[in-house]
Amino acid sequence: MKALVSIIMGSTSDMPVMEKACKWLNEMEIPFEVNALSAHRTPQAVEKFACEAQGRGIKVIIAGAGMAAALPGVIAASTTLPVIGVPIKGMLDGLDAMLSIIQMPPGIPVATVGVNGALNAAILAAEMIALGDEQVAQKVAAYKASLGEKIEKANRDLAQVSYEFKVN
Amino acid sequence: MKALVSIIMGSTSDMPVMEKACKWLNEMEIPFEVNALSAHRTPQAVEKFACEAQGRGIKVIIAGAGMAAALPGVIAASTTLPVIGVPIKGMLDGLDAMLSIIQMPPGIPVATVGVNGALNAAILAAEMIALGDEQVAQKVAAYKASLGEKIEKANRDLAQVSYEFKVN
Amino acid sequence: MKALVSIIMGSTSDMPVMEKACKWLNEMEIPFEVNALSAHRTPQAVEKFACEAQGRGIKVIIAGAGMAAALPGVIAASTTLPVIGVPIKGMLDGLDAMLSIIQMPPGIPVATVGVNGALNAAILAAEMIALGDEQVAQKVAAYKASLGEKIEKANRDLAQVSYEFKVN
Amino acid sequence: MKALVSIIMGSTSDMPVMEKACKWLNEMEIPFEVNALSAHRTPQAVEKFACEAQGRGIKVIIAGAGMAAALPGVIAASTTLPVIGVPIKGMLDGLDAMLSIIQMPPGIPVATVGVNGALNAAILAAEMIALGDEQVAQKVAAYKASLGEKIEKANRDLAQVSYEFKVN
Amino acid sequence: MKALVSIIMGSTSDMPVMEKACKWLNEMEIPFEVNALSAHRTPQAVEKFACEAQGRGIKVIIAGAGMAAALPGVIAASTTLPVIGVPIKGMLDGLDAMLSIIQMPPGIPVATVGVNGALNAAILAAEMIALGDEQVAQKVAAYKASLGEKIEKANRDLAQVSYEFKVN
Amino acid sequence: MKALVSIIMGSTSDMPVMEKACKWLNEMEIPFEVNALSAHRTPQAVEKFACEAQGRGIKVIIAGAGMAAALPGVIAASTTLPVIGVPIKGMLDGLDAMLSIIQMPPGIPVATVGVNGALNAAILAAEMIALGDEQVAQKVAAYKASLGEKIEKANRDLAQVSYEFKVN
Amino acid sequence: MKALVSIIMGSTSDMPVMEKACKWLNEMEIPFEVNALSAHRTPQAVEKFACEAQGRGIKVIIAGAGMAAALPGVIAASTTLPVIGVPIKGMLDGLDAMLSIIQMPPGIPVATVGVNGALNAAILAAEMIALGDEQVAQKVAAYKASLGEKIEKANRDLAQVSYEFKVN
Amino acid sequence: MKALVSIIMGSTSDMPVMEKACKWLNEMEIPFEVNALSAHRTPQAVEKFACEAQGRGIKVIIAGAGMAAALPGVIAASTTLPVIGVPIKGMLDGLDAMLSIIQMPPGIPVATVGVNGALNAAILAAEMIALGDEQVAQKVAAYKASLGEKIEKANRDLAQVSYEFKVN
Repeated sequence: MKALVSIIMGSTSDMPVMEKACKWLNEMEIPFEVNALSAHRTPQAVEKFACEAQGRGIKVIIAGAGMAAALPGVIAASTTLPVIGVPIKGMLDGLDAMLSIIQMPPGIPVATVGVNGALNAAILAAEMIALGDEQVAQKVAAYKASLGEKIEKANRDLAQVSYEFKVN
Repeated sequence: MKALVSIIMGSTSDMPVMEKACKWLNEMEIPFEVNALSAHRTPQAVEKFACEAQGRGIKVIIAGAGMAAALPGVIAASTTLPVIGVPIKGMLDGLDAMLSIIQMPPGIPVATVGVNGALNAAILAAEMIALGDEQVAQKVAAYKASLGEKIEKANRDLAQVSYEFKVN
Repeated sequence: MKALVSIIMGSTSDMPVMEKACKWLNEMEIPFEVNALSAHRTPQAVEKFACEAQGRGIKVIIAGAGMAAALPGVIAASTTLPVIGVPIKGMLDGLDAMLSIIQMPPGIPVATVGVNGALNAAILAAEMIALGDEQVAQKVAAYKASLGEKIEKANRDLAQVSYEFKVN
Repeated sequence: MKALVSIIMGSTSDMPVMEKACKWLNEMEIPFEVNALSAHRTPQAVEKFACEAQGRGIKVIIAGAGMAAALPGVIAASTTLPVIGVPIKGMLDGLDAMLSIIQMPPGIPVATVGVNGALNAAILAAEMIALGDEQVAQKVAAYKASLGEKIEKANRDLAQVSYEFKVN
Repeated sequence: MKALVSIIMGSTSDMPVMEKACKWLNEMEIPFEVNALSAHRTPQAVEKFACEAQGRGIKVIIAGAGMAAALPGVIAASTTLPVIGVPIKGMLDGLDAMLSIIQMPPGIPVATVGVNGALNAAILAAEMIALGDEQVAQKVAAYKASLGEKIEKANRDLAQVSYEFKVN
Repeated sequence: MKALVSIIMGSTSDMPVMEKACKWLNEMEIPFEVNALSAHRTPQAVEKFACEAQGRGIKVIIAGAGMAAALPGVIAASTTLPVIGVPIKGMLDGLDAMLSIIQMPPGIPVATVGVNGALNAAILAAEMIALGDEQVAQKVAAYKASLGEKIEKANRDLAQVSYEFKVN
Repeated sequence: MKALVSIIMGSTSDMPVMEKACKWLNEMEIPFEVNALSAHRTPQAVEKFACEAQGRGIKVIIAGAGMAAALPGVIAASTTLPVIGVPIKGMLDGLDAMLSIIQMPPGIPVATVGVNGALNAAILAAEMIALGDEQVAQKVAAYKASLGEKIEKANRDLAQVSYEFKVN
Repeated sequence: MKALVSIIMGSTSDMPVMEKACKWLNEMEIPFEVNALSAHRTPQAVEKFACEAQGRGIKVIIAGAGMAAALPGVIAASTTLPVIGVPIKGMLDGLDAMLSIIQMPPGIPVATVGVNGALNAAILAAEMIALGDEQVAQKVAAYKASLGEKIEKANRDLAQVSYEFKVN
């Protein structure tokens, strides 16, 4: 089994956020790997990782980072694989990380998701892989179709809420 | 020739920003289409577009929108294709559009790029298509490899700048 | 009894905020309904709801939403009923939801209230209904006249606070 | 002819923004009045205006204000008519006015629209009046139905844009 | 004993912040009064208060308010006494209240202090009264001279902190 | 003639903002002085100025400053005279200067006015002087009473604006 | 033993943040001193400290301050030693202190680190001292080389995390 | 002549900001070099530069960057020389670049100056070099001593400003 998605984070303290990506990929049976790398603490390892990822069969890279979050952009600088950036909540509700990740210069895009949005990063990765993989495409379609159920459940719950002037 | 990338915007006034995506895709010889749609003015057309895009052979959707920028998210709600959102500068330097696009609920990701980042959206789209298209992969690789030239050119320019205590 | 106000939210987790609207309308004996809908998870149900609300006798729609809060605007796109948007606290103290709701394009207004301002949304709905309903008008007038009592009570409390150099 | 909508602003310098409301109401043939009032310069006139508006037949009040924009809230304090607040661009792209208008205390709502959103304020006022006025209801419905035309026009324009790899 | 400073707040929930002003004025033996008033709930009482304060011998008004904090500005509109505004923490760390109070239009100043800065409001009031009252002037001077003691105490504490390479 | 108000600024480039204070005080015939001082460029001169101002008969100090605006606070540290701070527009629409001036520690208040609010600073200074000077009090009262005229003028202008459905 | 680094803070309540600098300097065996000073409470002591620091053998000054954080800038005004400013978290996640410290006027730089970034301030101080001190240079190099270990440790931890579709 | 300061920027478009550093260093006769490098376009060149700078005799690195400004931090990751970061104005008045530069993780400090603060970066670099270079120390001291002249000149200008009630 070769990993299709590579999940990167700067510290194990990011794991509570990033594991939402792990769990979803696991559920979808999309092989993935998880590593710690830091643009500021292990710059050469980041460079090596980014240059070799495609050759190892990786299709999409998900990089979570907080504060002055250089990691996703620095990885994107050395690969042509799509890189998804997950801003991790730090200052100003994560606005420092969001701006550090999303405001990339022309030529080196990072696909940024919402603050702590690791689950959405995993789904986005699957949508990209699905472009060339019918099986993954079907899983993503099934997952997205199931999202309405949460709302149906909510409606059943709200139907139980009772007020004299509430019309059911 | 069938379009692989569909570029959507809410108004022709967004064209000066979004044409950076058109030009780059054209240069890379990646077929694309351009349409105006609005989550608020033509909601049914948006729904129809989102549901049918995949069947028409579209691989990636790029949606540019400003202010309360619902368009990218509403398209993402009805397709499993990857959707790239381009926040267009409005209030607070585009922060209104950025937050409206990026802060998606769990399950429906939008790959968001920087404010007015249509060029990066196009490159990101190409990186996704490249996952299953060797020819596009080579074009993206060549493009990214060329980015260093801008810096080499800058260094030649800076070498011309002359001060007594500047060391060349 | 037909509902005059329709309260919509994206998740039961919004209920602690939105129930302030329910309670007040109930107290005022203004019939209402409560449903869960999501612009991103059940887009077709939202469209159907928005198109049919007026025909079912609804006068005003109150939609609460957080983060990239597209729901109020998307409903407003498919109805001519007044839509009141309630930004629910997420990032930056709710600024993400507020900007996503209030910054609507020309032609499709959403009447936005403060963050978590569901009570004010209900009162605003009643003020609108009161334009054509004398009974509701009287209830709103009585309610607003009673607001001064909270201040009178506060003054009685403050009168109890005792300092040597405090003059009563 | 009695005015149904009363448009208030703090200074004639707000007229370039607020006249978008005037023009639209005029086009829709909804009678309106326009006055200058200031919560800080003519507080007693504001109080008098707010208390008497309903008696004069006014249905909705639109108040535009910038900076520490107290006007809409102070009017709302003394009437049970719906009050629509228009934040006028000052500091931080109008965020000072927006927060000053929207963050009303419980009990006294102001229906806030986007920065400089006077046109949307007028449409919202018409939607409210339409609740009890079939003729206005039809005008609003016709107007909203026409919004799609702007998008159709945009699509015709975009169809003219020509690139070798653009698919029409 | 006639009050020289009038402390106003919109709700007893503001008392934990505003009592820092009460305590300091009491300690300085400057007579004050405390009342609840609301620009939105009791507008006529605010008007009456503002118009009569000077006649009752009040020298300075301190008004605390949160959210869309209209109270200080509305009081300033109807008096020529100096009005000190205290933004009370609500949204965005109190930035909503701060902007609502400080951004007054030309002609009606409010002397604004920091978020929850009731103690500083009291000292500022004393500094104003001191302009025409030698006894208060001496108290303020003595108080300000004592501020250095807190730093001297801190230095004694820091001198106790022991590290091998810390030089005392 | 001895100056009652001392206007301080960090640079002659602040004069276009601060001269609004000069003009108003001149009109009101309140003697004032104008000097340049900088907390960062001439710290000892600031200290000397602050310590001696009261002895020279100054009643109120108005200090304008931009960016990391330390000047008003540093003056307030060495005087018991009331200090009014004027944030001058720099970054983030003047928010850097506003926060640098208003967020003073307990014990050393600065009375802060809005961004570029030099006129309001002058009026506030006059309101303070008026506490002990009946002549100034009358001038301030007359000035404030005249503010309504601007609104009356605006109403005359607005009465000229003509639309078919505008009711005069 | 003479102190090379002088750590200044405005209050002992800043010690939990600033002690991270103390601990690191102690570990590196770089002599330091710790004092409390306040630009607003003890302005003359600040001036004296800043003027005399260099003469006492101090090489770098680290100043932590919150809110309207004037201390680092005021020290920088009276010394030619490099001054490092540490914004301490107050309002808007420390943005008030950050802007108050970093936005210095031309001529008087403060080297600003991140919010609560006292550890980084200490390292930066050591990097400066290392320019002329080979022993310190070696310690800093060793410390920086060790940073990668944290990532290696994280990778060992992540290798333990087990999912069926996770590839190790 | 060997360069002591290395000035780095990501694009020649940053030169109008960064040349303020060049000019000042030139005036002070401190040898410097100027190069273009990009963390995203030439990552390997950045790595090489950072690793070799110290060996070439560089004492301080000044790196200017805008938007998602990773350059200063990435350089700091691979050197123990002090790195000064200059945020260049982009979005939100440069707040995106400022947060991207200043919010570094523990262990890798960047000495950040204000937005577009290249002059201050140069002075800060000189202050660091002065720690081990008496000649530079004297130049910096002379420069800082001269800053007061700008204020003296401003005072002469302000003395010319004439109002009837202005006291000279």
